Amino acid sequence: MIQVESFAEGKWHASKTGNREVRHAVTGEPIANVSSSGLDFNAMLDYGRTVGGPALRRMTFHERGRMLKAIAMYLNDNKKELYRLSGYSGATKRDAWTDIDGGIGTFFIFSSKGRRELPDETFLMDGQLEMTSRNGTFVGHHICVPLEGVAIHINAYNFPCWGMLEKLGPTFLAGMPAIVKPASVTSYITEAVVKLIIKSGLLPDGALQLICGGVGDLLDNVTGQDVVTFTGSATTGLKLRSKDTILRNSVRFNMEADSLNFSMLGPDVSPGTEEFDLFIDEVAKEMSIKTGQRCTAIRRTFIHESNVDAVIEALSTKLASVRVGDPSVEGIEVGPLVSADQVAEVAGAVESLSTAGEVVFSGADAIENSGDGAGAFHPMTLLYCDKPFSSGTPHDVEAFGPVNTIMPYSNLDEAIELAKLGQGSLVGSLVTADADVARTMVLGSASHHGRLMVLDSTSAKESTGHGSPLAHLVHGGPGRAGGGEEMGGVRAVHHYMQRTAIQGSPQVLSSIGNEWYVGADRPESQIHPFKKYFDELSIGETLTTHRRTVTEADVVNFAGVSGDYFYAHMDDIAAKESLFERRVAHGYFVLSAAAGLFVFPNKGPVLANYGLDNLRFTQPVYPGDTIQARLTCKRKTEKEPREEEVLQGVVEWHVDVTNQDDELVATYTILTLVERQS
Amino acid sequence: MIQVESFAEGKWHASKTGNREVRHAVTGEPIANVSSSGLDFNAMLDYGRTVGGPALRRMTFHERGRMLKAIAMYLNDNKKELYRLSGYSGATKRDAWTDIDGGIGTFFIFSSKGRRELPDETFLMDGQLEMTSRNGTFVGHHICVPLEGVAIHINAYNFPCWGMLEKLGPTFLAGMPAIVKPASVTSYITEAVVKLIIKSGLLPDGALQLICGGVGDLLDNVTGQDVVTFTGSATTGLKLRSKDTILRNSVRFNMEADSLNFSMLGPDVSPGTEEFDLFIDEVAKEMSIKTGQRCTAIRRTFIHESNVDAVIEALSTKLASVRVGDPSVEGIEVGPLVSADQVAEVAGAVESLSTAGEVVFSGADAIENSGDGAGAFHPMTLLYCDKPFSSGTPHDVEAFGPVNTIMPYSNLDEAIELAKLGQGSLVGSLVTADADVARTMVLGSASHHGRLMVLDSTSAKESTGHGSPLAHLVHGGPGRAGGGEEMGGVRAVHHYMQRTAIQGSPQVLSSIGNEWYVGADRPESQIHPFKKYFDELSIGETLTTHRRTVTEADVVNFAGVSGDYFYAHMDDIAAKESLFERRVAHGYFVLSAAAGLFVFPNKGPVLANYGLDNLRFTQPVYPGDTIQARLTCKRKTEKEPREEEVLQGVVEWHVDVTNQDDELVATYTILTLVERQS
Repeated sequence: MIQVESFAEGKWHASKTGNREVRHAVTGEPIANVSSSGLDFNAMLDYGRTVGGPALRRMTFHERGRMLKAIAMYLNDNKKELYRLSGYSGATKRDAWTDIDGGIGTFFIFSSKGRRELPDETFLMDGQLEMTSRNGTFVGHHICVPLEGVAIHINAYNFPCWGMLEKLGPTFLAGMPAIVKPASVTSYITEAVVKLIIKSGLLPDGALQLICGGVGDLLDNVTGQDVVTFTGSATTGLKLRSKDTILRNSVRFNMEADSLNFSMLGPDVSPGTEEFDLFIDEVAKEMSIKTGQRCTAIRRTFIHESNVDAVIEALSTKLASVRVGDPSVEGIEVGPLVSADQVAEVAGAVESLSTAGEVVFSGADAIENSGDGAGAFHPMTLLYCDKPFSSGTPHDVEAFGPVNTIMPYSNLDEAIELAKLGQGSLVGSLVTADADVARTMVLGSASHHGRLMVLDSTSAKESTGHGSPLAHLVHGGPGRAGGGEEMGGVRAVHHYMQRTAIQGSPQVLSSIGNEWYVGADRPESQIHPFKKYFDELSIGETLTTHRRTVTEADVVNFAGVSGDYFYAHMDDIAAKESLFERRVAHGYFVLSAAAGLFVFPNKGPVLANYGLDNLRFTQPVYPGDTIQARLTCKRKTEKEPREEEVLQGVVEWHVDVTNQDDELVATYTILTLVERQS
Repeated sequence: MIQVESFAEGKWHASKTGNREVRHAVTGEPIANVSSSGLDFNAMLDYGRTVGGPALRRMTFHERGRMLKAIAMYLNDNKKELYRLSGYSGATKRDAWTDIDGGIGTFFIFSSKGRRELPDETFLMDGQLEMTSRNGTFVGHHICVPLEGVAIHINAYNFPCWGMLEKLGPTFLAGMPAIVKPASVTSYITEAVVKLIIKSGLLPDGALQLICGGVGDLLDNVTGQDVVTFTGSATTGLKLRSKDTILRNSVRFNMEADSLNFSMLGPDVSPGTEEFDLFIDEVAKEMSIKTGQRCTAIRRTFIHESNVDAVIEALSTKLASVRVGDPSVEGIEVGPLVSADQVAEVAGAVESLSTAGEVVFSGADAIENSGDGAGAFHPMTLLYCDKPFSSGTPHDVEAFGPVNTIMPYSNLDEAIELAKLGQGSLVGSLVTADADVARTMVLGSASHHGRLMVLDSTSAKESTGHGSPLAHLVHGGPGRAGGGEEMGGVRAVHHYMQRTAIQGSPQVLSSIGNEWYVGADRPESQIHPFKKYFDELSIGETLTTHRRTVTEADVVNFAGVSGDYFYAHMDDIAAKESLFERRVAHGYFVLSAAAGLFVFPNKGPVLANYGLDNLRFTQPVYPGDTIQARLTCKRKTEKEPREEEVLQGVVEWHVDVTNQDDELVATYTILTLVERQS
């Protein structure tokens, strides 16, 4: 018997009383005891807030991102034990892969996104500078900083590893500590993951605590700086969300609830086509994975009325070929449900669904090695509901197992209406070869869904499938699905940060944001900035170049070198009729000449110019005009050291090019790699 | 007596029963009757959902933006009556300006932001394409579409015009209909604004309904497609937020509650300096506007212990000079509170605050024309709390009137701690001339605030003030402030839209998004795309150019024309030691030569190349390399017609430049103006 432990205030804690017994999904034998008795939940909150939070907040996003990567690598190297434990819960190898490798994968993605899309700072400037005054002396911006409380993650039983990691990724990246509370029935797997993470020593003290068993009065002490997330049933979610402390203190509550997701075969697809086969495979696969115990699993399948018989036949044949049984047996694709309780619940739901439709396939007799009846098995079950608009049942009753109801539609409007009858779902998917069908369905049903997938023969091979939420994309859905949003790349980081508008002079905002903004000071550099190492450059330091008079010869020479003989530069007659009214210099000549003005030609710390952003030509430059450039150090970001590369950083320079009347003719940002000394 | 009407299902409705009497703030005389009896709230929801919603959803963001502008102009032309009615509520002319012109201003800003920052589509693509497969055949993106329910806005009494318009701006821009419920006591002003809007005929039928009086069972029928927003007291907010339908159906609930906002004088500022005087003026002004009845008003003022006496003296002198009384009298700067009930409430709060501090200024005797005691006047009141860490009262009790408590701090850590004792506020402000003080306070207290303002002598002249939320910036705050977020430019539009992840082949996503994405089809154009009018161009159509071999002569000539003699291009010795290992062509030469390859030189529909985005040089180009460009029509946006300008649109072109090995050497987007025929 495993005594599942909690991790509180930096110590592992085994409860002696109040234990709940957890059984093996296949054999029905007791395997673990779970209890949180004896924990001081308030002290845990305090520990997270005062020990874990400050430590994480001292790190930059890049440091936190590197930490996530290191943890992911550590877990990857030590995952064998997790696979072994997953078997106890009825998971096949594929199911365990989804949970374990899938979970570790989210850390890799959050790590990568954090380092690429967030700054190497402890805070994040959000959006752009807002010009809130005529002369630009009083402007606005937004800053995001980590909340100073604890993120409490209450997770579902079906993904004891992934469910924790997909939430911890953005939590840690944002700089918030967490308390994780897994569902008891699979908590021994979550405990094993947390043991590895703690053992790795990669997390600061207090960043992660674990409660296996009940949460006691934990939620009675949350404040507006804490965050509570919940994945699971709508009933439990409603109970949590209704807590007085959560409502009274405006505690952020992010919920992801099981929903009546749909799959659909486009009206353009007939039997015998590649897309038809794709669809049958996809539906069968999604009913099989995790034995249908996924919040994203397909519960409703919409088929054009002309294809209903063909789909029922093909899908039944396909399902009949899927081997269900003890996952430790070679070749078994679908295991048991997690527990006998779940079997009873799913059976009850199937009974309800049967009142609105008929069972057209049941794999009842096909269960292999079912553990002498002690295993938590439920057959693959397909229903058909002939009149999906006259009964609410198939849009309302969720059988959280390998159960799916087919429904007919006669046109796309009906299919959209059916999709919406789910009252808010996590995901819908559509197989079609017709882009117009895809567009109509997506625009018509997006309001009721958190994710929509369109599959065709060009994308099927690399598709990650209907049921798989990805760390890059948002996961969650409106209404019945809980109204929350998780993941979606760095969007998720915002769930754990406060966004605050800041107002002041451009110079004050520049000091806060550690970035030069238009209107902030531009002290003239005494040394050419291209002679300075990364470390030596200051935000705002500026080079004002010498001037250059643009001549007709320049325009002609530039046309010759570039091959660009556009009429506005080369054709007196056409240029006169154009909005320029006479011949103008090439925009790219202005850009090139500006580089000629500000580049320091000697070999020095500037290694390369690798890009340019937000170039706008704001006034034409005519032969006879005299231009001048100003180059200002706008932002600096250290690059992570790589072997065989000198230490370096990215320096973004703001460039303004003006004419003899001090009018801006071009403005842009250039990106350079600059060597750094340390 | 005004019989305040509601606007339901397209008709004005006057209730005969259940009327509540509203009194004039100065004279105490009855002025209006308010009741919503007889309204069918469910039918109103239905009307909004089935009539208003579909009409708004058919419009693009740009069309909705133009509609907002037209309404704002109409209100601006007809605002005289609104100013007259505002006087009944005790508003001075300045107060009425804040409410009326301030409200109209939010429509202008949302209109402008909608047309500049959102696409001319009925939906919005959010963020960037996500590469979720190795070969890029299965990718992800995010789409935002309007929710299909109704936005219910429950507003506070203090800003009967602004409070409605700042929420309607983003609601309509997003494409959602609204039902507005103003506080009864000033509902006659809101009614007058709605009458003007309806009379203008600029809104589609069903887009706006109004409930003056109670909301009956309105909130018992909300679904996950509806949105409820609330501005007002925490008590009422908690009651609304706890509604079973709201919790059960995951209804978005956005709350903005009154909070204990702070102002602070930096420790660097001494009496006799410009910043000191600025601070005194700012605090006095913020206590005066709307007679302190603002959710953003200063309630707590932090002063370095060395400056406490000087501040109390200067502020008392300043407050003593402010004229309080009947706002219809010339020169009166501060009017009454809205009602006798409010006076009693504020007096009670001052009594509580007095237990933790002493009253150091009270303008009790200075009220002019107070209406023989019937007017709802409350004196300007300043308190001093000597021990702000030992009593929670000044951080907890809000006197919603011209009342403010001064507290001492001895260092910035203490000031940050005081700021946070408010447990979440809408706004804090700081006067300092020291950028380090600003940075420390902002980074230290942002987690507990929705907005922070830093004032100094450079920004004061154009400052919009501590108490003014701006449509560009978020308004709301964590914890006590309600945990919500309003405005913040287009951020607010997302409160009324569902964000949905979409997955599929790049081509499918491209058809949905009406934009070319990397990996989508690039059919070769038979006619040079620069010969086509805006109307004739299709998303994805592509020009593959002829090739050009880059020679040493090109590099030399380009250096001569540009003046750019950077060592990597011109110095064999230094280039050999660089990461390029030998001389490379200038990046800007590659860019210019690519233009030479794809530009069609004849006069045609392409009017100008006005910008370039996201340029990345991905591989060096060496003399001897042969380059080729591909130009693909990526996105088209019509420009609003302007006088003296031919009809035109913005066409964004994706450009890839490759070398002889088909390696990408540069990729970017160019922006052109292209003439359109209709």
